[in-house]
Amino acid sequence: MLPRTYDGQVCSIARALELVGDRWTMLVIREAFMGTRRFDDFQRNLGCARNVLTDRLGRLVEVGILRRTPYQERPRRHEYRLTRQGVELWPAMMSLKTWGDRHLAPDGPPVLIQHRGCGGELDDRLHCSRCGAELGPADVEAASGPGLLAEAG
Amino acid sequence: MLPRTYDGQVCSIARALELVGDRWTMLVIREAFMGTRRFDDFQRNLGCARNVLTDRLGRLVEVGILRRTPYQERPRRHEYRLTRQGVELWPAMMSLKTWGDRHLAPDGPPVLIQHRGCGGELDDRLHCSRCGAELGPADVEAASGPGLLAEAG
Repeated sequence: MLPRTYDGQVCSIARALELVGDRWTMLVIREAFMGTRRFDDFQRNLGCARNVLTDRLGRLVEVGILRRTPYQERPRRHEYRLTRQGVELWPAMMSLKTWGDRHLAPDGPPVLIQHRGCGGELDDRLHCSRCGAELGPADVEAASGPGLLAEAG
Repeated sequence: MLPRTYDGQVCSIARALELVGDRWTMLVIREAFMGTRRFDDFQRNLGCARNVLTDRLGRLVEVGILRRTPYQERPRRHEYRLTRQGVELWPAMMSLKTWGDRHLAPDGPPVLIQHRGCGGELDDRLHCSRCGAELGPADVEAASGPGLLAEAG
């Protein structure tokens, strides 16, 4: 059991949220999982202010979730990719998505996460609902879900 | 694939974070998972200001993650319990914890989540590391981990 003096702040959940609990931060990470790498693409896909994006990208590099590497020399341009530590956020992101889909998406999931080449959907234990395989970020692709169509229509 | 016009905000992750992304909110939920039910116990365990706690508890009731029920009549007192929607946040909470333990806890996990009666630890796919059983919130108990002892010492 936990001691009665357990300090509520010595907590890996609290520490994780300090890094990724911010809404824009999590959306930047989501974009990175969907393959976005360049500043202008993040900016267009998220529709957030450029200074907000600059701040979040910088912080994510600083804490080791993204790494910044040059992809062009003249003029020098950088892209942002998930580090291994960043990639390991995938189960937490997918669990939050599953919960949101279930409780906050009355028109159905806006985005479906499907097992690439199989077409089964990611279940809440991160397995494929069709073939049962354990899935990771490289095994899936995103597709429009009913919630996205409802929003558009 | 997603359409090019995919709106970055139509997203179950963004919606979920609007409800639970706040640090104190998540810590209140964590406390509820650990069996805390009464205002004064939340307050003592979390060490947050009473008005902050009142606000977070009220909001969690409003959005359906906690329910407020009387446990005493004179004077009338209430307790807070997770709804089914709240209980379903468990995989997301545990995934965040696992990630924080791995990357933000240099002295080891502050808290160990163990399979009750078996003693195996919860792995990052929410199975027992010893017997392999799929675990839910009712199957586990919390114990002090090395990170908590390091903090105390």
